Amino acid sequence: MTTSSRPARPVVLGRNQYGKAENRVVRIVRDGATHHIKDLNVSVALSGDMDEVHLSGSNANVLPTDTTKNTVFAFAKEHGIESPEQFGIHLARHFVTSQEPIRRARVRIEEYAWERIPASDAPDAAETGHSFVRKGQETRLAQVTYDGESWEVVSGLKDLTVLNSTDSEFWGYVKDKYTTLPEAYDRILATDVSGRWRFNWTDDAQQAPDWNTSYAQVKAHLLRAFAETYSLSLQQTLYEMGARIVEHRDEIDEVRFSLPNKHHFLVDLEPFGLKNDNEVYFAADRPYGLIEATVLREGREQRIPADTTDL
Amino acid sequence: MTTSSRPARPVVLGRNQYGKAENRVVRIVRDGATHHIKDLNVSVALSGDMDEVHLSGSNANVLPTDTTKNTVFAFAKEHGIESPEQFGIHLARHFVTSQEPIRRARVRIEEYAWERIPASDAPDAAETGHSFVRKGQETRLAQVTYDGESWEVVSGLKDLTVLNSTDSEFWGYVKDKYTTLPEAYDRILATDVSGRWRFNWTDDAQQAPDWNTSYAQVKAHLLRAFAETYSLSLQQTLYEMGARIVEHRDEIDEVRFSLPNKHHFLVDLEPFGLKNDNEVYFAADRPYGLIEATVLREGREQRIPADTTDL
Amino acid sequence: MTTSSRPARPVVLGRNQYGKAENRVVRIVRDGATHHIKDLNVSVALSGDMDEVHLSGSNANVLPTDTTKNTVFAFAKEHGIESPEQFGIHLARHFVTSQEPIRRARVRIEEYAWERIPASDAPDAAETGHSFVRKGQETRLAQVTYDGESWEVVSGLKDLTVLNSTDSEFWGYVKDKYTTLPEAYDRILATDVSGRWRFNWTDDAQQAPDWNTSYAQVKAHLLRAFAETYSLSLQQTLYEMGARIVEHRDEIDEVRFSLPNKHHFLVDLEPFGLKNDNEVYFAADRPYGLIEATVLREGREQRIPADTTDL
Amino acid sequence: MTTSSRPARPVVLGRNQYGKAENRVVRIVRDGATHHIKDLNVSVALSGDMDEVHLSGSNANVLPTDTTKNTVFAFAKEHGIESPEQFGIHLARHFVTSQEPIRRARVRIEEYAWERIPASDAPDAAETGHSFVRKGQETRLAQVTYDGESWEVVSGLKDLTVLNSTDSEFWGYVKDKYTTLPEAYDRILATDVSGRWRFNWTDDAQQAPDWNTSYAQVKAHLLRAFAETYSLSLQQTLYEMGARIVEHRDEIDEVRFSLPNKHHFLVDLEPFGLKNDNEVYFAADRPYGLIEATVLREGREQRIPADTTDL
Repeated sequence: MTTSSRPARPVVLGRNQYGKAENRVVRIVRDGATHHIKDLNVSVALSGDMDEVHLSGSNANVLPTDTTKNTVFAFAKEHGIESPEQFGIHLARHFVTSQEPIRRARVRIEEYAWERIPASDAPDAAETGHSFVRKGQETRLAQVTYDGESWEVVSGLKDLTVLNSTDSEFWGYVKDKYTTLPEAYDRILATDVSGRWRFNWTDDAQQAPDWNTSYAQVKAHLLRAFAETYSLSLQQTLYEMGARIVEHRDEIDEVRFSLPNKHHFLVDLEPFGLKNDNEVYFAADRPYGLIEATVLREGREQRIPADTTDL
Repeated sequence: MTTSSRPARPVVLGRNQYGKAENRVVRIVRDGATHHIKDLNVSVALSGDMDEVHLSGSNANVLPTDTTKNTVFAFAKEHGIESPEQFGIHLARHFVTSQEPIRRARVRIEEYAWERIPASDAPDAAETGHSFVRKGQETRLAQVTYDGESWEVVSGLKDLTVLNSTDSEFWGYVKDKYTTLPEAYDRILATDVSGRWRFNWTDDAQQAPDWNTSYAQVKAHLLRAFAETYSLSLQQTLYEMGARIVEHRDEIDEVRFSLPNKHHFLVDLEPFGLKNDNEVYFAADRPYGLIEATVLREGREQRIPADTTDL
Repeated sequence: MTTSSRPARPVVLGRNQYGKAENRVVRIVRDGATHHIKDLNVSVALSGDMDEVHLSGSNANVLPTDTTKNTVFAFAKEHGIESPEQFGIHLARHFVTSQEPIRRARVRIEEYAWERIPASDAPDAAETGHSFVRKGQETRLAQVTYDGESWEVVSGLKDLTVLNSTDSEFWGYVKDKYTTLPEAYDRILATDVSGRWRFNWTDDAQQAPDWNTSYAQVKAHLLRAFAETYSLSLQQTLYEMGARIVEHRDEIDEVRFSLPNKHHFLVDLEPFGLKNDNEVYFAADRPYGLIEATVLREGREQRIPADTTDL
Repeated sequence: MTTSSRPARPVVLGRNQYGKAENRVVRIVRDGATHHIKDLNVSVALSGDMDEVHLSGSNANVLPTDTTKNTVFAFAKEHGIESPEQFGIHLARHFVTSQEPIRRARVRIEEYAWERIPASDAPDAAETGHSFVRKGQETRLAQVTYDGESWEVVSGLKDLTVLNSTDSEFWGYVKDKYTTLPEAYDRILATDVSGRWRFNWTDDAQQAPDWNTSYAQVKAHLLRAFAETYSLSLQQTLYEMGARIVEHRDEIDEVRFSLPNKHHFLVDLEPFGLKNDNEVYFAADRPYGLIEATVLREGREQRIPADTTDL
C-alpha cells in the first residue's frame, strides 16, 4: 500500500459515492398466455461512512458493487416491477436500512417501452400475447434518493424528438457587432426533449402518487404544450411546457428542461431558379442552440441541478 | 503533383465511386393547415470514367460532391418526396443521364418516421396539423442503383427490436470439447431486425410497385412471422420471416436478414433462496450471436451482398 | 400567443441559461512552412435578465445563439487559441461585459490533440510541417465561468483508458444475503478516467496559471498515481490520484473523478482442461462499477457538482 | 412448428452464415515483472451444410455460437495471440477442420493498442511494467477466411484521422446547373482513414508474412503518402496511398480505401471586419464527401467488396 506510511497530507476526502451502474434487467410476468414485459437499466450509487476505503483501501464498510447488482435482480423477483419509481424506492430503502455504514442511496433507472406485435389480419386470428416490438420513442427516467428519513423522486424522459413546421418566429433580439442572423417570421422549431420533474412526495406517511399515470399525463401535457404554443422563442415554449405540468399535476413541484434547438435551415434554391416557400430544409447536427430552464411551483425550492444533462 | 513524373508503376485502379453522403433533407408540404413531413438522409455514390482524377488529379470528369448535395435539395423541391425509392430513382436517373462520364449512380436513403402529436383531450379541440413527434421505431432504408439501362431497387429497415418471451427452444446441437451450453426448452428470443429486400422491377417499361404499400406490408409480414413462429433456432425464424415476404409480395425476389441474437440470460437466484421460473433476465450486450441468411424466390439470382451489414 | 391573456399562474421561473453548443472551431497558425493546429469544440451558456423571453417570448434581452457562435469563430481570429482555458476566459469576459442583461457566462471546451505525421525514413527527408494525425487518446476539457466579478476555471479530461494487469486486490468487504462475489487477490484493474479539477485562480488581479503546463503535469501525475498505487479498491486508487494532484499542483484546490470499474473477468477454462493463471480475460461492457469522489485541498470548499459526469 | 406441415413453397435458401460476434478477449503474458497485453474483439462466422436448421429448426449440424465463443477464449490460452491475423488463422482452421458440416469460417478481429504508462521522472524510478494506457488512435483490423483449401487474409485499420493544413486544391471540375461551389486553391484536406488490404498468402505451403511488421509498414506508408502528396483531389491522394503500399509491400495485392472528405469550411469573418487568411475553419459533420476506390497490383484480381464500409 502506498498510503499507509505517508505523513499527513494537506488533502481531505469530499463527497463520494459508488455502486453498480447499468444493470440491464428484464422481467416477464406470465398471466396465462398473456405475458407482460418490463425492461429497465438500473444504476445504484451508495454513500455513507466510506473514508477508510479511500484512505487505506479497507473494504470493511463496502458492500460490493457486485452485491448491489445481485440485489437489483433479486428484487425484480421479490418485489416485481410496477414502475421504475416504485422499484427504485424498494432498492433505495433496502440499501439504507440494511447496512449501517450506508447513509444514502440513489437509484437511477431508464425504462424502455415495448408494445405488442399486431396479430394477423385474419378475423379469427388469436393474439399470441408473448410477442413484443420495442416502441423506440422516448426513454423514461426515474431517480430515487433516500437518506433514511426523506425521499426525493425525480422522474423524466429523454430523446423525445418533436417538430413544429410553423407557428414559430424569432425576431426582436439584441444585435451586436457579431450578429448576422436575419429575423425569422415562420420557421421550423424542433428539439429533442430532455425533461426532469420532481415530486413533492418525500415521506412514507404521505400517499405516494400513481407513478405510471403521472408519467403518462406529464408526457401528454408537454407534447400538447409544445404543439399549441405559438412560439416567439424556444424559451417561451419551454416555459409553457413546464408551467402546464405544474398547473395540471399537483404531485409535481419542479420541472427542468434541457432543449437543443435543432436547427432546420431553409435551403437557398434560387441559384437553381427555384423558390423555396418554406418547403425544403437542411437538418443541421452541430452547432445547436441549447436552452435550459427550471419551472417551479410558487414558493417551492429548486433542487434539480442546473448544470447537468445527466439528470 | 507527385504522380506526374513517375515511371510506370505495377499498379492499377480498381472499382471506385464518390459522392456526398448523409444529406439531411426535410421536406414540408402544406395542405392548408395540415402539413406533411418527409425526413430523409440521402447518400449519393457515382462511378464512371474516373481514372484521371485518381491518376493525375484532373477533375475534368468530376461533378463535385457539393453539386450532388445541391441536387438532392433541389430535387426535394422539383420532384417532391413520395417515397425514398421514388426519390432515389429521380436522383439516380438524373446523374447518369445528365453527365456523360457518369455511368452508374447509387443512391442510399434512410427515412425517419414521424407521427402527429395528439391534440387536446377536449372534445372541441382542433387538430393543429403542424406538430409532429418522431416515431422512433425502425429506420426505413432504400437503395437505388442505375447504370443507364436497368434498375436495382433494394429496400429495407434496421433497428426494429423484437422479443418473444416464450415459444423458443434451442437443443439437439453439435457438442464438441468446447461446448458447455445447456440445452434450453423455453427461452427468450430477441433480435434487432436488419433486413433488405430486392425488387424485381428493373426496367422503366415495367409498372413500378407502390413503394409505400410494399414497405408497410413487408414490415407487417416479418413482424407476424416473428410472432407466430415457434422457434427451434433463430435461423428457422429468420427463414420463415423471409419466406413469408417472398410468398406474399410478388414484387420481391430476394430477402436478406442480419439478426443479432440478443441474449437474455436467466439470472441464477438460487443463492438468494429464490426460484426464477422464467421471470428475471439479464439482457447482455456483447458477445451476441449473429445469424445472417438470404431467402430467394425459386429460380431467381442472389444479388444482395452476403458479407455486409451495410446494405 | 398562448401566454399573453393568461391569469396569474402559480408558477415561477427558476435557473436558466442558453447559448450555442458544440461550435467546432479549427485554427491553423502558419509559422512559415511549419503550421500549428488547435481543434476545439466550444459550448456557450449565458444567463441573466431573461424572465421576459420565457414569460412572453420577448427577445429584447436575448443575444441570439447564432451570435454566440459567430463570436467563437471571430475570437479564434482576434485572440488566437493559446489554451482552451484562456480562450474560454476571452469569451466569457466578452459576453458578460458587452451585454448588460447577461450576468453570467459559462464556456465549456473540448480539445482534441493532434501530432505531426512522421516524415520519411530517408535521412535527408524534410519535414513537411503541415500534416497531422489525430492523437486519439483522452479529450481535454475546460470550463470557464464568469459573473463579472470572479472566475471559476475547472479543467479536466475524459476517455483516458488505463489498466493495471496486477497489483490489485479486492477482499474484506461486507457480505450480506445477496453477496456471492469471491474475494480476489490478483485482479486486473481498468478504468476510463474522467476527471475534473478546479483552480484557485478566481481574480484578474492574481497571476493566472500556465494552463498548458498545468494540464500536462496533472495528466502525468494521475497516470503515475494509477500505475504506482498497489490497489485494495478502486476508491483507494482514485483518492491517491486526486491527492497527488493536490499535493503537487498548488494552483489546484479540488479534484473530482468519475471512474467506471471496467470489469475484466477471468475466463473459466477448466471445462476445456486448461488452467487460466491470470492470462485470459473477458472484458465486460455492462454493468460496471462506478466510483466517484472529490479530493480537496484542506480548508477549501467543494464546488464541483457531485452528481454529474457532465463536468 | 410452423414449417413442418407446409406444402412446397416457391422459396429457396441462399447464402448464410452464423457465429458469435464481438467476443472481447484480453490476454496478459507475464514475463517476470514485465507484462504484455493483447486486447481483441473477435467475431466468428461459419457456413456450410446448414439447410436443415433454416428449414426445420434441426440443430444437428449447428455448433452453438456459445461454443464458438468458448473456443475464442480457449485458443487465447492454447495458442496465445501473436497477431490478430495469426489468431484468426488458428480459429478458422479449427472450425473448418474439426466439424464436417462447416465448410467455411470467417474470423473478423479488431485490435486496440496499448502503451506503457511512463514511470516517474525520478532518475532511480523502476518501471512497473504492468501499467498501460490505451493508445486510442486507429483500430487495427484483420479478417481471415478459410474454406479448407485456401486462405484469404485481409488486414486493415479504421478511425485514423489525418489532416493537411495546406497543399490541397480543388478546381477544374464539371459545372452543371446545380453547381455553386467556388474553386479552391488552398484548402484543408482531412479524412478518417478506413483501409483494407489483401495479402497474396493463400496457401499453407507458402511462407506467411510477418503480420505485425507488415501492419506497421503499411500504416507508415499510408501516412507518408497522405503527408507528401500535393493533392488536387482526395481521389488522387487515395490512389497514391494505395499505390505506395502495393509498390513497397510485396505481400499485398489489393488495397481499398473508404475516405470521408471531412469538410473544414473557411469561416466568413468579413462581417466582423476581420480577414480570414486560411486561419479559422468550421469543422462540419454532415454531409461529407465519400471517396472509395481499390488499388490493385497489376494482373491481380479484385476481391475486397466495393460497396461496403464493413470490411
